[in-house]
Amino acid sequence: MNRIFMILVSIGVPLSVIGSLMQWPSVMLFIIYCVTIIALASYMGRATESLAIVTGPRIGGLLNATFGNAVELIISIFALKAGLIGVVLASLTGSVLGNLLLVAGLSFFVGGLKYKRQKYNVYDARHNSGLLVFGVIVAFVIPEVFATTMNESKTLSLSVGISVILITLYLAALFFKLVTHRGVYQSTHQDEEQHEEEPEWGKKKAITILFLATLAVAYVSENLVHTFEVVAESFGWTELFIGVIIVAIVGNAAEHASAIIMAYKNKMDVAVEIAIGSTLQVAMFVAPLLVLISLFFPTAMPLVFTMPELIAMVTAVLLVVVIANDGESNWFEGATLLAAYLIMGIGFYLL
Amino acid sequence: MNRIFMILVSIGVPLSVIGSLMQWPSVMLFIIYCVTIIALASYMGRATESLAIVTGPRIGGLLNATFGNAVELIISIFALKAGLIGVVLASLTGSVLGNLLLVAGLSFFVGGLKYKRQKYNVYDARHNSGLLVFGVIVAFVIPEVFATTMNESKTLSLSVGISVILITLYLAALFFKLVTHRGVYQSTHQDEEQHEEEPEWGKKKAITILFLATLAVAYVSENLVHTFEVVAESFGWTELFIGVIIVAIVGNAAEHASAIIMAYKNKMDVAVEIAIGSTLQVAMFVAPLLVLISLFFPTAMPLVFTMPELIAMVTAVLLVVVIANDGESNWFEGATLLAAYLIMGIGFYLL
Amino acid sequence: MNRIFMILVSIGVPLSVIGSLMQWPSVMLFIIYCVTIIALASYMGRATESLAIVTGPRIGGLLNATFGNAVELIISIFALKAGLIGVVLASLTGSVLGNLLLVAGLSFFVGGLKYKRQKYNVYDARHNSGLLVFGVIVAFVIPEVFATTMNESKTLSLSVGISVILITLYLAALFFKLVTHRGVYQSTHQDEEQHEEEPEWGKKKAITILFLATLAVAYVSENLVHTFEVVAESFGWTELFIGVIIVAIVGNAAEHASAIIMAYKNKMDVAVEIAIGSTLQVAMFVAPLLVLISLFFPTAMPLVFTMPELIAMVTAVLLVVVIANDGESNWFEGATLLAAYLIMGIGFYLL
Repeated sequence: MNRIFMILVSIGVPLSVIGSLMQWPSVMLFIIYCVTIIALASYMGRATESLAIVTGPRIGGLLNATFGNAVELIISIFALKAGLIGVVLASLTGSVLGNLLLVAGLSFFVGGLKYKRQKYNVYDARHNSGLLVFGVIVAFVIPEVFATTMNESKTLSLSVGISVILITLYLAALFFKLVTHRGVYQSTHQDEEQHEEEPEWGKKKAITILFLATLAVAYVSENLVHTFEVVAESFGWTELFIGVIIVAIVGNAAEHASAIIMAYKNKMDVAVEIAIGSTLQVAMFVAPLLVLISLFFPTAMPLVFTMPELIAMVTAVLLVVVIANDGESNWFEGATLLAAYLIMGIGFYLL
Repeated sequence: MNRIFMILVSIGVPLSVIGSLMQWPSVMLFIIYCVTIIALASYMGRATESLAIVTGPRIGGLLNATFGNAVELIISIFALKAGLIGVVLASLTGSVLGNLLLVAGLSFFVGGLKYKRQKYNVYDARHNSGLLVFGVIVAFVIPEVFATTMNESKTLSLSVGISVILITLYLAALFFKLVTHRGVYQSTHQDEEQHEEEPEWGKKKAITILFLATLAVAYVSENLVHTFEVVAESFGWTELFIGVIIVAIVGNAAEHASAIIMAYKNKMDVAVEIAIGSTLQVAMFVAPLLVLISLFFPTAMPLVFTMPELIAMVTAVLLVVVIANDGESNWFEGATLLAAYLIMGIGFYLL
Repeated sequence: MNRIFMILVSIGVPLSVIGSLMQWPSVMLFIIYCVTIIALASYMGRATESLAIVTGPRIGGLLNATFGNAVELIISIFALKAGLIGVVLASLTGSVLGNLLLVAGLSFFVGGLKYKRQKYNVYDARHNSGLLVFGVIVAFVIPEVFATTMNESKTLSLSVGISVILITLYLAALFFKLVTHRGVYQSTHQDEEQHEEEPEWGKKKAITILFLATLAVAYVSENLVHTFEVVAESFGWTELFIGVIIVAIVGNAAEHASAIIMAYKNKMDVAVEIAIGSTLQVAMFVAPLLVLISLFFPTAMPLVFTMPELIAMVTAVLLVVVIANDGESNWFEGATLLAAYLIMGIGFYLL
């Protein structure tokens, strides 16, 4: 398996560079880019896994979420610069849905095929539930509803205010987890497990690989974005569908890969941290940061999604809160999340 | 009590047959039909109870839900054939609300009058919560919101896609409960209780009575439907009110009867399985099946409820998830559910 | 600290009387009134605390909620009489948001600065969650949605019906807590704590102070209302913002003060009872009572909020249910609630 990815990377990266320089046909490039990113993602996944073993599940999970969303942040900034606000909001929606339903769903499902019942830290699960409801339901629904009776400039003021609050609370959450309440809600069984395994790579090597792979993913992703328009036409997809579904799957491939690997190794604390933690980072850090950054560009981006995007995120959060709040999972809970993702996928495809 | 029902059935069934053949006045027939169904339901309840003792609470609960909704499925198919899509959607709404709020509410309330605190399997409760949010909130809200910006043919495609996913996940849930995770989440106190009681009837006799009573209920119910229009006029009710409230009470009388009997005997696992299980069967099996069946009729039925129907179901699910998720009940929780049912009943009456 | 409040009261009350008689400038009076009420509230808080020690946490909490909302009820009746339905609905919204997010948030935050983890009765928390979803989500959302397709007279009928149901269930909840299930869900650690402390004042003195302070607060509050219009103009605030935010903070200062004092003393049962109990009293008792009382006035008030008001309350309830349902709190949960309050405050300010 790892050999296949090594081959794909050593072929895919040069092909991506050559292809983009020589302007090969978009659909062909699209496929090369996607495969390359997914292969690179496996390196990121393994590097993160090695680091996670060394640094513990929480920092490991954070690392993962950070490296996964760095790519997305870069892509979105380029898109904002080009004034493509709709695509950015769609890809934020796609990231939230992809992490919450697809990554968590696959983790629960694949892990559940091997283990009858998988447990993860119930305190973290509840902490995350509160933040999901805050970050998605409160912070995204309020501007949507209030904006209907506001003019554009007030909507933007509200968006900026909410963005500052979101980022502040996100930093407060890190302070809570890493400083004031570090280890307070640690479950005991968790600690034992970590020290059983040997990391694949040393700390230094893992960091180097993570860095190089992230760089390569960023380079390929940026090229990928420019193929979207032509690909959408070729396949008869809407740009919304590409933003919500394709960007979510390829752009979050890193999380997908490593979360599922972790779930399969019964390290559910890490898998859940990646899926939910990444969602929270998108909702509470990437999205508001993009709102603030957009103020420096010609077209400012308010924090106002389309109604289908908003309702999809809100119902996804309600489903995940109810399913994941108990600190336990099984294959059927994974199947339920995947089914919800499929329903939303069909909806966005037909929209 | 049982004697009264015996007398009602032995008078009600012949009267129903004679009355419908001789075309007695609709309001008179309406009352005869309702009383007869409720009396027949007590037989179904007792037969199911006997079977539940023999086969265990889970299969017993499933049996109940199946026999309750078979009636509804048959009525709905006739209504679909006649193109009465609004009435079918209203009666699906009524079934969901009736099972979730009225049946569960009465079970909690009546059981709670006898016992201070009643417990049921908390794992089943959480499993059901996840499915309720999936089946009602995700699967019913998404088409509603997405349909507002879709044409009719795309709305129908989305409805068909969601229906297939719902039925698949419903079957997966049965597979999960009866095969891969049979007994995994069994609580120990539950097993002890079952074997204390003697069934009223043997397995064979119970099945025969269940079969005959279901047949009679189906026959009477079908006639009942044809009295609705005239009754609505006589009493000044809307067809929506009849679909949502009257069909729910009479059509689900079987569940009502047996769930309450079970609650009164402190067999809350069965009572909850009937109420919530029946809701899930309506939302995840009967409703999508009717969508698919409607494709063979002149007028296809999309999975798009009216906004009051949808909001009533969504708020009912949120209330039940919050109240029933802890695996405990008391009379006040029952009163809360009944109060919610009353609010919605007044709303649909006035609409 | 207590001396400062003593000085403020002994200066503020006479100044309020003199100022209102001599018709001092509104903005000046506004500030005098606000400071006086907050100082009086500290007396109410300390008196209630003394009573709470004597009578136990539950009655103490109820006392608090009652005395806090008596003021609001009186103000609202005067506003209703003047036909200011919009202001009454806004101040009800503000009370719900203020108690749920600001009072509970400050209690969790301030208490959490001193204690790493604070616990409160998990059964009460779940009981309250059910009532919050019933009182706010079911009982406020249903009339909103149904009213869009109803005429005015039917909307009022629905509002009256729901109001009667709300008050009945509120009384049933008291009956449940104080009669049928008194002490059933009592946690053991709770009982020990109470008897450790000495009350500041005896029962008789506490009641006298509570009575006088409430009277004074009512007097000052009534005058406060009449300054709103001029103050709104001076500061560029909308009446909605004053209703939702200013009334909530000043009008519920009593709850704020005593809930935070209790949280700081690690008596979280009382703090939560004040914050959530007060919300429930507003939603399930004050609001429906005002609907019924409004029938005797020229303009009847339906139970139909504006969409921003409704969505703010619904998302606030979802957030609190997810955060407070586990019977534990910490400073970060408090910060999350405060952040949600801030978001809504900005929203109402800009509206």
